Amino acid sequence: MKALVYHGPGRKTWEDVPDAEVREPGDVVVRVDTSTICGTDLHILHGDVPAVTDGRVLGHEAVGTVTETGSAVTGFRTGDRVLVPAITRCGRCAYCRRGMPSHCQTVGGIGWIFGHLIDGTQAEYVRVPYADSSLYAVPDEVTDEQAIFLADSLPTGYEVGVLAGQVRPGDVVAVVGAGAVGLAAILTTGLWGASRVIALDTNKFRLTKAVEFGATDAVEAGPGAVAEVREMTDGLGVDVAIEAVGFPETLLTAAALVRPGGAIANIGVHGVPVELPMQDLWIHNVRLTMGLVDTVSIPTLLKMVASGRIPAERMGTHTFELDRIDEAYDVFGNAAAHEALKVVLTR
Amino acid sequence: MKALVYHGPGRKTWEDVPDAEVREPGDVVVRVDTSTICGTDLHILHGDVPAVTDGRVLGHEAVGTVTETGSAVTGFRTGDRVLVPAITRCGRCAYCRRGMPSHCQTVGGIGWIFGHLIDGTQAEYVRVPYADSSLYAVPDEVTDEQAIFLADSLPTGYEVGVLAGQVRPGDVVAVVGAGAVGLAAILTTGLWGASRVIALDTNKFRLTKAVEFGATDAVEAGPGAVAEVREMTDGLGVDVAIEAVGFPETLLTAAALVRPGGAIANIGVHGVPVELPMQDLWIHNVRLTMGLVDTVSIPTLLKMVASGRIPAERMGTHTFELDRIDEAYDVFGNAAAHEALKVVLTR
Repeated sequence: MKALVYHGPGRKTWEDVPDAEVREPGDVVVRVDTSTICGTDLHILHGDVPAVTDGRVLGHEAVGTVTETGSAVTGFRTGDRVLVPAITRCGRCAYCRRGMPSHCQTVGGIGWIFGHLIDGTQAEYVRVPYADSSLYAVPDEVTDEQAIFLADSLPTGYEVGVLAGQVRPGDVVAVVGAGAVGLAAILTTGLWGASRVIALDTNKFRLTKAVEFGATDAVEAGPGAVAEVREMTDGLGVDVAIEAVGFPETLLTAAALVRPGGAIANIGVHGVPVELPMQDLWIHNVRLTMGLVDTVSIPTLLKMVASGRIPAERMGTHTFELDRIDEAYDVFGNAAAHEALKVVLTR
Repeated sequence: MKALVYHGPGRKTWEDVPDAEVREPGDVVVRVDTSTICGTDLHILHGDVPAVTDGRVLGHEAVGTVTETGSAVTGFRTGDRVLVPAITRCGRCAYCRRGMPSHCQTVGGIGWIFGHLIDGTQAEYVRVPYADSSLYAVPDEVTDEQAIFLADSLPTGYEVGVLAGQVRPGDVVAVVGAGAVGLAAILTTGLWGASRVIALDTNKFRLTKAVEFGATDAVEAGPGAVAEVREMTDGLGVDVAIEAVGFPETLLTAAALVRPGGAIANIGVHGVPVELPMQDLWIHNVRLTMGLVDTVSIPTLLKMVASGRIPAERMGTHTFELDRIDEAYDVFGNAAAHEALKVVLTR
């Protein structure tokens, strides 16, 4: 079969690899009908994730069709249409039992293993371990082009942003960074009754999208942005500031935007330390949360997509066939220039 | 009357000042029968709190007797024995209504005003504004020497440490710093069913006290401490790490101690930024909380002291009469050398 293989920083090839196959009784093999590219894949290609080694098939998001099942699998059959989420869960360890498979101790201490610790989904087929506790059936009402964004970006914005930030009815929410994950937070924060959702970004295309996705206000990020938002919020700031970029300056912006008693929900993947102004923050009774997605909200999100409340398909701006994945990476890697949010990879 | 007056960094005098008196209809005057000194008072004397200006009477903790009441006061009468908490609340603003008077917008945007924005409790008498919504009656079963620690240090350890950290039954809790507030957290974390409470400090006297106050383990802080605690906790760390010092290194120790999915509850008052290793932490699904005490737990704590569950009087190691407050400051300012926790100031 063909797959996108990592060969060290900056090097990847769409090439022949051994077929994906059942190895353990709990495995299934899924034919990848739809996949996508995540910002994390770009980090890997930059060499920022040393656990990913030469020869690894990349990708951790897929919608596909079951083609083979291990002898212990009871929840899925050949022909089933399934969502392969970014997180694999054994379903048995203490972390899985408490609903936090992001730290599944069985699969490696971290639930993200596709395209990281095992071969991933940017391939014609993928082996899925712990299939019964990891895969989700996709309802007929949900298209591939919708479901694919429920593998990672939508649950990340929702769980690590909206749920961790504990958005409540009436809250004023700021989302710093309106890329795919920031837009996912904007798409889902309305579900919790936010009275106002303020998007901040340096990119005008993204700000336009933010308003289409449900932001009530779009603020161009820059030196005056914090003061502008404070003016909009009785001088004290927002209830919940969601950080969706992963740079020190964007986290500091979120910290500057939050009012006393509020929450900063960090979604961004950080590469360097952040000098947090604890001398100012300690007295503000704020909460800072951070984390990897658990993908436990997927059943909720599938229902919201099926009912039309979440137009997930709007996350995809460009579509490529899998064997044109190099072009897809070029577009996604220069998303701002291409006015791209997420790319859809099809069979 | 006599009071301890701040005269700029490093300078304070026990001197004659105008008598405390009712100025607004909601005020009462309290004769200070018992007071104490807080680490924050030392910060003020170091010049770290610019809002405190020359001429300000210091102190924000007292137990005393009502000697005069304003015309609008209905909840207290002359002769009542009351606790004057660190936090003043108007009871009407949005922050007071949601139980967060630490940020009372009426009294100054911050609920801590005694010895900060108005004259304080290290005096023979103190004017208490918003008395009906701020004072607490002290039950007969609770002595002055117990109640005085409910004005600030015990609720701080409990609210900003144990409650913000969301300690739950079975949790393993680490408390970094076993000074008065760290010990307050240790005294109260057992109420929530912690299975193990690990105290860390560089000072052996404090570690001895920590065990007396309910810690199950005492670990000498230093280069090997994090590894030692991890060995005690299946290699992953503690559920809740409470920071009770206020230095970058102690917050980083707390961050290093917490397991994935756990909480860091910062109690410490910080004077400088903290370089937080977000490149490691972002993926750990941890929560960092911080804040000023609300003192809303005082009714709970009064009941626990009255029933004997919290031996609050053990916080006091040294007693001085008010006019010997300079000596009291010397002892408290060199607490480790004097094997002091909190000092009790009496009439």
